[in-house]
Order: sequence, then structure tokens, then C-alpha cells
Amino acid sequence: MNLVCLDMEGVVAPEIWIEFAEAAGIPELRLTTRDEPDYDKLMKYRIDILRQHDLKLAQIQEVAGKLEPLPGAREFLDELRTFCQVVILSDTFEETASGLFAKLGYPTVFCNNLIVNDEGYVVDYNMRIKEGNTKTPTVQAFMGVGMKVFASGDSYNDLGMIQAADHGCLFKTTDAIKADLPHVTAVESYDELMAQIKEAFGVK
Amino acid sequence: MNLVCLDMEGVVAPEIWIEFAEAAGIPELRLTTRDEPDYDKLMKYRIDILRQHDLKLAQIQEVAGKLEPLPGAREFLDELRTFCQVVILSDTFEETASGLFAKLGYPTVFCNNLIVNDEGYVVDYNMRIKEGNTKTPTVQAFMGVGMKVFASGDSYNDLGMIQAADHGCLFKTTDAIKADLPHVTAVESYDELMAQIKEAFGVK
Repeated sequence: MNLVCLDMEGVVAPEIWIEFAEAAGIPELRLTTRDEPDYDKLMKYRIDILRQHDLKLAQIQEVAGKLEPLPGAREFLDELRTFCQVVILSDTFEETASGLFAKLGYPTVFCNNLIVNDEGYVVDYNMRIKEGNTKTPTVQAFMGVGMKVFASGDSYNDLGMIQAADHGCLFKTTDAIKADLPHVTAVESYDELMAQIKEAFGVK
Repeated sequence: MNLVCLDMEGVVAPEIWIEFAEAAGIPELRLTTRDEPDYDKLMKYRIDILRQHDLKLAQIQEVAGKLEPLPGAREFLDELRTFCQVVILSDTFEETASGLFAKLGYPTVFCNNLIVNDEGYVVDYNMRIKEGNTKTPTVQAFMGVGMKVFASGDSYNDLGMIQAADHGCLFKTTDAIKADLPHVTAVESYDELMAQIKEAFGVK
């Protein structure tokens, strides 16, 4: 059985933290995994900045709830789901991203959770997998139960799963990442990504 | 992150082989995993009977394509997907069940594949996992990558996953299976199943 594992932010949805940084007028929150490969460092930095600005989860949710999938993303996913299985593998947080899940047609998502205190402040986060990359072992687990996996994403935290999967490619990534992985195909549009997936799975 | 793993046939969709047995007028094809726990024995028996009656995959697909989800199943899944993740774990075959996937709103499905020869006859089948039960190791794999799993199904091949998962219950099963697992909750309706899931995941 064929399964596509896709990163969410930057692939089918905007980067929630960047959008929130814009809305809240806090440029320090613009950093993503494309800039900072150490996710724990990035998240602790974000949580500190939220607290410094007295911002609660509800205020992130208010901005995130208004976000739309990237243009063409819903149609891309809808077509994909007619001929193979899809799981979104994201290091986003269910608490901020669930509005986007709905707008993407509720694909299955494996992501993480925020820890919020009684006053509504984000105080910590809970990664599905405590040590190391969350996506690579997940792809390996799917392959271990007989799925043939095509993986795609745009960021540092996607490189492991792309290389671990049966097939994969980079999607709208940076020049720095392309240079790090010159042997991996890099595509720039949903049409190209769809063509890569269909070719890998032998779908006409 | 919370994930519900559901059996398909008998839980959200009719038993495809039973429906085909009726349509083709072949009562021997009515046997399911509820009657015959040895799936390999069951499938070889089915393939032999198809061949004896000169029936091709296309003829099963014609019947299966007209099947509808069980009453209330689509609404049940739609509600479920608003507050947790869902993966259908089925020993059905993609080639015969894909029409039902569409009518269920394309939940993610992990199932198996039929092997069809050039003339269109089913000659064999390919289980995702070659030895033993396919569902139990899949639930264990999901739990191994940090998902909190609730599993439910109606048949012998669901008992392993229900017991391996963090939470689970039987759904519209037989008296024989209930007697085998007296310590496992057995429910008879989507309302009851939804209540079990919400309680397990602490959802109001």
C-alpha cells in the first residue's frame, strides 16, 4: 500500500509562527526550522518571547484560526487521497494548527502538543518523540508495517524522512538545503510533486 | 496526540465479501473473519470459489462500487476527525474497497492488496504484514511513535489491536467474541463508541 508523508507548514499550509509574528508585530518570532535546525532551542526561544510579550495560547489561536492552506494545497491533497494514503508529518502543534487541519479536509496528522498552564500561557511543549527527529522514525514505523512511503518537505527536519523513505523529494526548499542534498530531487510546484509521486508509485 | 484505529467492514462499512456473495448468488462467499479466524485459509477459499465461478476482479469492483457506508458511519467519522486523528486498519483490499474509502470521506486506510493476473482474475493477495495479525503491530508502531491509541473493531482479527492499544472496545461483535473477552467493553452504537472514545481521551 502506498502512503505519502508530507510536511505541513511550507508545503500545504503557511508557517503559523511567521504569520503570528506578523500579526503580533514581533519579528523575533519569524524564525522557523528552515533557519534554526535545533527545534528545542527554537521552541524555548518562542515560548520565552511569548511570555515577554504577555501573549497566551488563545491569541495565537485567534491568528492561526484565520489562516488558509497555501493556494492549490487542498486540491492537491484531495487528488492525492483518491489514489494513495496520506499522513501529514509535522512538528507543528495540534493546539494552534487544528483550524488548518479542517481547511485541508482533515487529512490524518501526526504532530505535537503544547503544554498550557491554567492561566492560558504556553509553558512547555510535548514532542511525540522525545529524542531526535520525530519524522524519520515515524516513516520507518510506517515502512515497518508494510507501507511503501513517499516523503516530501521543505525544511531541515524533513531531510531524514525524505532519505529514509522508499521515495521522496524536496518541495519549495531553500538553496542551502538543496546544496546539502544535491542527490535529492527538488520540486517547486504541486504539479511537479504530483508527477514525482505518481512516477514513484507507478500511477498513471 | 490521540489516534483512533478502527476496523472498516462491520464497523463503518458493510462486509464486501458478503455483499458480493449476495449479488453473485454464491452463498459459500459469505464467510468472514467473524466465522473463520485463519485469514489465509479464508482468502485461498475465496479465490478458489471466484475461479470456479469464472469471476474477475472487475465483477467484484462493480458490486463493491455500489456499496454505501453503514448508516451514520460517515457522520461518526466526520465528528471524530474534528477532535482526534483516525486511521482505518482493515484486512480488506484496496482494489475492492476504494469506492468505500471515497464515500467515507477518504480517511487514511492501512489495508492490503489483491494480486490480479493479466486476464483480470484474482490469483493471490499481498498482506501488508506477512506473518500473523496485521493490525496489532500497526497499533504498536503508532504507539511507538508517540500516539495514544484507541482501537475498536468487531472481529477476531481486531482482538489483538484492541488489547494492545492504550484504550479500546468491541463494536457490534458476536456473542462468541464477547465471551472470549469478557473484560473488554462491548458497545452497539456509534453514540456509545463516541462516548467511549471521548472518555478515554478526556474530550468533553
